[in-house]
Amino acid sequence: MIVVLKENPDQEQLNSLIEWLKSKNMEVFFSEGKSQTILGLVGDTTQIDGDLIAALDIVESVRRIQEPYKKANRKFHPADTVIELPNGIRIGDGSLTIIAGPSAVESEEQIFKTAALVKAAGASILRGATFKARTSPYSFQGLREEGIRLLVAAGKENGMPVVTEISDIQDIDKMADIDILQVGARNMKNYALLKELGRCDKPIFLKRGDSSTYEDLLMSAEYIMSKGNSKVVLVERGIRTFENYTNDTLDIAAVPALKQHSHLPVLVDPSRSSGRADLVEPLALAATAAGADGLTVEVHPDPQHAVTDGRQQLRPEAFQSLVRKCRTIHSAIKEEN
Amino acid sequence: MIVVLKENPDQEQLNSLIEWLKSKNMEVFFSEGKSQTILGLVGDTTQIDGDLIAALDIVESVRRIQEPYKKANRKFHPADTVIELPNGIRIGDGSLTIIAGPSAVESEEQIFKTAALVKAAGASILRGATFKARTSPYSFQGLREEGIRLLVAAGKENGMPVVTEISDIQDIDKMADIDILQVGARNMKNYALLKELGRCDKPIFLKRGDSSTYEDLLMSAEYIMSKGNSKVVLVERGIRTFENYTNDTLDIAAVPALKQHSHLPVLVDPSRSSGRADLVEPLALAATAAGADGLTVEVHPDPQHAVTDGRQQLRPEAFQSLVRKCRTIHSAIKEEN
Amino acid sequence: MIVVLKENPDQEQLNSLIEWLKSKNMEVFFSEGKSQTILGLVGDTTQIDGDLIAALDIVESVRRIQEPYKKANRKFHPADTVIELPNGIRIGDGSLTIIAGPSAVESEEQIFKTAALVKAAGASILRGATFKARTSPYSFQGLREEGIRLLVAAGKENGMPVVTEISDIQDIDKMADIDILQVGARNMKNYALLKELGRCDKPIFLKRGDSSTYEDLLMSAEYIMSKGNSKVVLVERGIRTFENYTNDTLDIAAVPALKQHSHLPVLVDPSRSSGRADLVEPLALAATAAGADGLTVEVHPDPQHAVTDGRQQLRPEAFQSLVRKCRTIHSAIKEEN
Amino acid sequence: MIVVLKENPDQEQLNSLIEWLKSKNMEVFFSEGKSQTILGLVGDTTQIDGDLIAALDIVESVRRIQEPYKKANRKFHPADTVIELPNGIRIGDGSLTIIAGPSAVESEEQIFKTAALVKAAGASILRGATFKARTSPYSFQGLREEGIRLLVAAGKENGMPVVTEISDIQDIDKMADIDILQVGARNMKNYALLKELGRCDKPIFLKRGDSSTYEDLLMSAEYIMSKGNSKVVLVERGIRTFENYTNDTLDIAAVPALKQHSHLPVLVDPSRSSGRADLVEPLALAATAAGADGLTVEVHPDPQHAVTDGRQQLRPEAFQSLVRKCRTIHSAIKEEN
Repeated sequence: MIVVLKENPDQEQLNSLIEWLKSKNMEVFFSEGKSQTILGLVGDTTQIDGDLIAALDIVESVRRIQEPYKKANRKFHPADTVIELPNGIRIGDGSLTIIAGPSAVESEEQIFKTAALVKAAGASILRGATFKARTSPYSFQGLREEGIRLLVAAGKENGMPVVTEISDIQDIDKMADIDILQVGARNMKNYALLKELGRCDKPIFLKRGDSSTYEDLLMSAEYIMSKGNSKVVLVERGIRTFENYTNDTLDIAAVPALKQHSHLPVLVDPSRSSGRADLVEPLALAATAAGADGLTVEVHPDPQHAVTDGRQQLRPEAFQSLVRKCRTIHSAIKEEN
Repeated sequence: MIVVLKENPDQEQLNSLIEWLKSKNMEVFFSEGKSQTILGLVGDTTQIDGDLIAALDIVESVRRIQEPYKKANRKFHPADTVIELPNGIRIGDGSLTIIAGPSAVESEEQIFKTAALVKAAGASILRGATFKARTSPYSFQGLREEGIRLLVAAGKENGMPVVTEISDIQDIDKMADIDILQVGARNMKNYALLKELGRCDKPIFLKRGDSSTYEDLLMSAEYIMSKGNSKVVLVERGIRTFENYTNDTLDIAAVPALKQHSHLPVLVDPSRSSGRADLVEPLALAATAAGADGLTVEVHPDPQHAVTDGRQQLRPEAFQSLVRKCRTIHSAIKEEN
Repeated sequence: MIVVLKENPDQEQLNSLIEWLKSKNMEVFFSEGKSQTILGLVGDTTQIDGDLIAALDIVESVRRIQEPYKKANRKFHPADTVIELPNGIRIGDGSLTIIAGPSAVESEEQIFKTAALVKAAGASILRGATFKARTSPYSFQGLREEGIRLLVAAGKENGMPVVTEISDIQDIDKMADIDILQVGARNMKNYALLKELGRCDKPIFLKRGDSSTYEDLLMSAEYIMSKGNSKVVLVERGIRTFENYTNDTLDIAAVPALKQHSHLPVLVDPSRSSGRADLVEPLALAATAAGADGLTVEVHPDPQHAVTDGRQQLRPEAFQSLVRKCRTIHSAIKEEN
Repeated sequence: MIVVLKENPDQEQLNSLIEWLKSKNMEVFFSEGKSQTILGLVGDTTQIDGDLIAALDIVESVRRIQEPYKKANRKFHPADTVIELPNGIRIGDGSLTIIAGPSAVESEEQIFKTAALVKAAGASILRGATFKARTSPYSFQGLREEGIRLLVAAGKENGMPVVTEISDIQDIDKMADIDILQVGARNMKNYALLKELGRCDKPIFLKRGDSSTYEDLLMSAEYIMSKGNSKVVLVERGIRTFENYTNDTLDIAAVPALKQHSHLPVLVDPSRSSGRADLVEPLALAATAAGADGLTVEVHPDPQHAVTDGRQQLRPEAFQSLVRKCRTIHSAIKEEN
């Protein structure tokens, strides 16, 4: 951490700042020039609140050098985290995990049909929203408890672990039979929820907020991990930009960049990021080529009559083609490496 | 709502779409050109899910013309909403309401001292975070229940209603003695929380999310209002932009624009948006000139030793000067109108 | 400037870096911790290219502490720059300068009529585009040479200096009779143009690019000033955000923030930023309250039949009201200070 | 184009609007509801200025349905444009064209060495900045005329066409021997330059502005094409977002999306977008998988001592590996299709 001082700082205040920093186990280095003085702090600065220092009269600005997250930081945990799921499925071990299913669970027939289809095409985890967060209070809000029951049953029938999104702390108990809980982009900074999930024993798919940075995302992972749950999987699902043709802009660099900074697995969601079925395949191929640990893809037996997000859900045959091409790229790169 | 069809749409599908729209009480108008056909829908389109229509094979795109919110919409409720509070305080009646207090409640001494100071300087509502949402799980998270007790007591002592931020549904009961609940920017799309607040009988200060549009904000207001609570106050607190000198960029046009679209009062938060005490006064003056119904300003008796956000909190004397100048501008404009 | 080194840097490379820095008249301070070593550079770092240092194998990152601009920097030139124009008009001396006129010069009648109207209402500088930059090559591109002739004549008739936008270096000679040249937001980083304007003897209105920071804008001012022309006026005209109701989002904090960092005058353009006539007045009032040195406002005798930008141009009577209210606020604040 | 009228529009004004639209060869359809009336315009709306209509008193808003560009539009030119270059090189014919070279031409030795290296590794076009646009007027501005001479000579020696960036209209003549001219992101809306390039007979690499949309980019292509030069190649090089770890965020969806809307070839620049050598390979692989027609990659024999952008330039061996893997992916996908 670097503390830039104002010109001619009050000597007494400066001494008191330095004493305080030393009491926090910081080593303090001092660069004094004619017009500018800089303090260099060396030590475990994750415990130091830079805002406190920035508020002092003698301080012009504070810059953090070290990342503010620890448990999610690859520096402190160099080995890749591998998430183990029922049926021998592993996320983060170099394989390409395919999570697929409809945007929302709509009916028994729909979810059982989709589960069988995506399983046959090569997916290993079943997804589907049950408690659906919608921009409008007047839109369909999901089948709720009934949706959970159907999703779990369809997963069981096809030997697939299931994942659904949670947005309300009060729903955790209702989701006892769900294998993986997903935090949506809107809730990435819902710290109350993150802390509660940190006390669960389930893997968490944590989606990046639509205007969040890598560091923001890793700080949210840290919230979960700081409460004891280290089974966090990061999901890149696009960020808000000025481009409106797509829902959001898939930040493909997030895949290698997050893997540089963190040991956690990284998934990509080409469906939600683009919001357009006709862009899902090229984005899925790109994500695979960039080194993603898996993909989460929305598939519906009849997108035209989907209750939500019909425009972004793939038809089963398009999903088959996507999986086949992704596997080809995944193998081609593995051989090269 | 406008539905743009693809070239040569299947006639059967088109008829079935038109039938369905008519069954939803829409009037459907038809513009057929050589290369493009457009359907114009007229009626109460807030109940129509445009995404459903956009998913159809024959549809190229759907554009909404009407706003998707109703209860928050000035078109349907032309008269300004005025929020009445204890002690005769009114927000939205043409007066300039000043909400002030520390970023966070830190101690009995701090909150009582601040309350007396801001009251004397002209504030009528006391603010202070008690359950504090922080980016890092390692930062100070607020005095919690004790903070609520102190805030309420300090408000009572000075005859001021109090406002604090809620970010966890499970805290609602603990906040029974709080007069006004505030939803922070990070929770603007926490729909579970919004719905719960819609069932309260308290005024809600709803802060705009840092990358949300006016429509996003009004849809969140609609969530609260759709559950029965119409006492919503909108708060402009800055949006995320590429400018990093300030915390966020105060969108001053939000004041007149929100008041065009909605009957709800609009407050401005110059402290959080700038994150810099030296910018708070010019922003407060600008907000007053632009027609804000009030200001929420962070004040601390000793910002240098504040536990959080020291850099953005005003000293008491700076706050006095701000209030005096804002009142001058508010009166000057009133006389001109 | 701070140089953060990688762990265990090669000692020889480090010594050679330090030698090189010293040869550039930098004082180099050294903070060595267990896991991290930091170099603090003190001296005139505007001449040091941080990218060069960042490319070294032993370097993790480089952070600039000092601003990279010099001539535009208030630290080195504490006194406000005041621009003197014909007819005793001064920008930046504490007065509120009103620049007004149509979006584009359309005809002799239109520009003479507008000039007389805005002069009567209190404007002192006449504006109007002549060479018009348009997103579409098929849109009206301005009256060009004829437009210049008309603008200059209308200014002369009313005793007003005139300003028009330049976007092509090759047009400088054609604009010999123009008093002030304006650089549009799209050309803020057109360095070839900026350098050429740096060799002119005319005041330059430099508009902020729509996704530029304060530092970006001041670096563009530095381009002009580095070639010898110090008569630069900064114009805040809105930045691109996710809010689409307005053209761009007026960043009102830019007014005090730019004045903190630079001695150059700061104008605000409420017309272009909002793109909506019904928002121009509240934004103009806010800009005045925030301390702007002037306003540039688009006025048209008949906006409905304007050739361009009709939606954002004020009717003459609305402009009169705006000027009156702005003057009231400007006086009220002056008295308070 | 859709024109939404205000409630109870003046009938005379409405008739006059409809007459005017018909005189422009528009078919006008009329949807009249209780509270809202909509006009649907069908015909060649690229020639209609929506802003003009939006300025009318009776009009609430105008929405464009058709794209405002024509020559760049795939609807009107379904077949892919293929750019033919000397030595039989073709861009846009389904092959993967590799453009490589240093960020800037620095010396005879550097450019000849790099040219030979990238040629051997599989590049077919040589790149290198000669007139360099820099944020700071105090930074290295390129070798200029001498740089052009060296780049052309190095290209000739290795049988490679060459490309360099132009930012000043006045430099066109100096670049007579350059095969391909590149427009940088900062100049994407420099319409004066675009028009001049439209009169050239050379291929133009047009880089997307850092906060531009697909439509903005295609409108800039239209500027060039409207003056007669149809040899335009689009370059995705990242857009500005809140993520600061990378220079800009590579918008990988731009590849398939631009190819949907336009017949022009699409290149990707993984060097400039990331600004980090360690991210260039994964981004290049992703771009190839997403269907890019080519890549433009910065390579330097000794990035540590590069005069500019050392951090983002690849070492020759890293470039070899990148080309090999990209070719593997390109072939794998071709076989699948």
